[in-house]
Amino acid sequence: MMIPARKPNTVESSTAATRSAADLLAAARATVLPVLRPVIDRLPEPLCHLAGYHLGWWDAHGGPEQGAAGKMLRPALVLAAAAACGDCTHAAAPAAAVELIHNFTLLHDDVVDGDRLRRGRETVWSRWGIPAAIMLGDAMHAAAVAQLISRLPAHLSTAAANRLEDAVIDISLGQHRDCEFERRTRVDLTEYTDMAAAKTGSLFGASCALGALVAHADPETVAAMEEFGRELGVACQLTDDILGIWGDPAITGKPVGSDLARRKKTMPVLAALASETPEGEEFSALYRSERAFTAADIARATHLVEATDARSTVRRKADERLAAALAVLPDGTVPADLLTLVDAIVHRDR
Amino acid sequence: MMIPARKPNTVESSTAATRSAADLLAAARATVLPVLRPVIDRLPEPLCHLAGYHLGWWDAHGGPEQGAAGKMLRPALVLAAAAACGDCTHAAAPAAAVELIHNFTLLHDDVVDGDRLRRGRETVWSRWGIPAAIMLGDAMHAAAVAQLISRLPAHLSTAAANRLEDAVIDISLGQHRDCEFERRTRVDLTEYTDMAAAKTGSLFGASCALGALVAHADPETVAAMEEFGRELGVACQLTDDILGIWGDPAITGKPVGSDLARRKKTMPVLAALASETPEGEEFSALYRSERAFTAADIARATHLVEATDARSTVRRKADERLAAALAVLPDGTVPADLLTLVDAIVHRDR
Repeated sequence: MMIPARKPNTVESSTAATRSAADLLAAARATVLPVLRPVIDRLPEPLCHLAGYHLGWWDAHGGPEQGAAGKMLRPALVLAAAAACGDCTHAAAPAAAVELIHNFTLLHDDVVDGDRLRRGRETVWSRWGIPAAIMLGDAMHAAAVAQLISRLPAHLSTAAANRLEDAVIDISLGQHRDCEFERRTRVDLTEYTDMAAAKTGSLFGASCALGALVAHADPETVAAMEEFGRELGVACQLTDDILGIWGDPAITGKPVGSDLARRKKTMPVLAALASETPEGEEFSALYRSERAFTAADIARATHLVEATDARSTVRRKADERLAAALAVLPDGTVPADLLTLVDAIVHRDR
Repeated sequence: MMIPARKPNTVESSTAATRSAADLLAAARATVLPVLRPVIDRLPEPLCHLAGYHLGWWDAHGGPEQGAAGKMLRPALVLAAAAACGDCTHAAAPAAAVELIHNFTLLHDDVVDGDRLRRGRETVWSRWGIPAAIMLGDAMHAAAVAQLISRLPAHLSTAAANRLEDAVIDISLGQHRDCEFERRTRVDLTEYTDMAAAKTGSLFGASCALGALVAHADPETVAAMEEFGRELGVACQLTDDILGIWGDPAITGKPVGSDLARRKKTMPVLAALASETPEGEEFSALYRSERAFTAADIARATHLVEATDARSTVRRKADERLAAALAVLPDGTVPADLLTLVDAIVHRDR
């Protein structure tokens, strides 16, 4: 494990310790957009238009859009991992690639989850139909890999593309299992965190590993970065699960109690069902009922889950995964930028 | 354009002139399966199981399956193009890649087209649900690219992966347009052939181009092979359209008149609608009606399309695209294996 000491006279490291999460995400956006823009522009119409809408760059009619773009967490992880390993020269291509892959998987997830809203806007399938969302996702997956291997030097491109595609396979598995859980009556918490490690952890892991890889880190460091990112991804998913029930719709852009309304089996729900409390029993009966939930049902369900102490249980599990992530990077020396991002990921409100 | 003269003392060329299409497809299968098998085996369960089912290797319970595998046309094109360019050393990886990409697009096409049968068997989405088919397609896309770049030498892998991903973007566009046509009242024949060039022609083009590319052909030859394959792909799609109406269900594995039953706007339908004949008018009224077609409706629709002479029109257009394909390869010297495959593609019954 070799994360080199900071070189105090480079731009990245001299400012790193003082940068906020907002600074890091803005820097990631500034690095990634000039790479993403020509990739999206090269997509044939109407795929180009749909991609720009999905990415939050423009509205459904092609006009400018404000505040609908993604957070750029994954690109920021690529850049922070590359900086931690001492070389950001080749980090823009993998940073753009993970953002494209993330967005391709969102397109397909929205279809299979039936989600009509994302970041406060209609999803692509809801606006243009399921075929459009599936095909746009496929094209963005292809474009992600093509730009990655085209921009990286030959000695990096094969290993980088392999890491990225391994993550896609893991994400596909995770999403498949998540859908399967929705049809089952019982899912244990370990199965759930395994699913989250595949569905969310794998691309976080690939982001950190790719940052290290393109910085020419040794294989041990790349593997440690992967593990760090994967654990962080699970913590991120559990945070998402909390926001899916208790998040503020004005901030998350999703309807109130959206995960409960759709009877999703997220971690707080599974913890409530497994709690063996009277509130857990009442919640279980409510969740098993066949009728569509009213606003009052959702409010009652939210109260019941909270009363089983499931929220603290999930918060604690997220903190455990976070501790596991930090423990992977030895000697207590987590690079400052990564630590800032970690904090932002697990203590966010959207 | 440099397709080298045959080297009479190599195995490929000494037997090439005498090989039937069945020989070529069997040789493609023998080359590709040893590459495909470990790729599929490495997919995590249940994706591995679903992939083997989709590829026709085993039944829904994992038992052996006979006669349900794909025709291996695209891998055979890769191998024939590589042989025509004098070097088959690296052809197995792109041959496997195009078969995986073809199958990933079939998985997604079956979802967006609502097709419940393929090669006489239930489709993956029909058997295991839409999420399973979408996620399996995504994983097979990833696996196709990963094996391609891992197996090819570095000086070939970037260009090869780029060609493959360009084809995926084209296929996504073509399938998106095809779905859009289904919602429109009027589609002209040029729009339709442009769509077919993207949806079907692009992977045929990539197959031929990849064969040439990995045989170290010059850029002009690679481009000619791409154009040849693309035109051949359009001819193949038009042949499919004919089989979708007049094909024998016992041979095609699809229900009788399946494209008409689903009111698909294939080329014979568009030709019938544009025919300005009394039969075309009656057919148009029938197609516009809202009710589900009975067997008698399908039989009547089939008769009407035939009576407008649409079948010959489409057959003639397929022959034109075939002639265009052959004209791309200069000096009237189309390599024997390619010519054999061309004949099999446009004169098939399934």
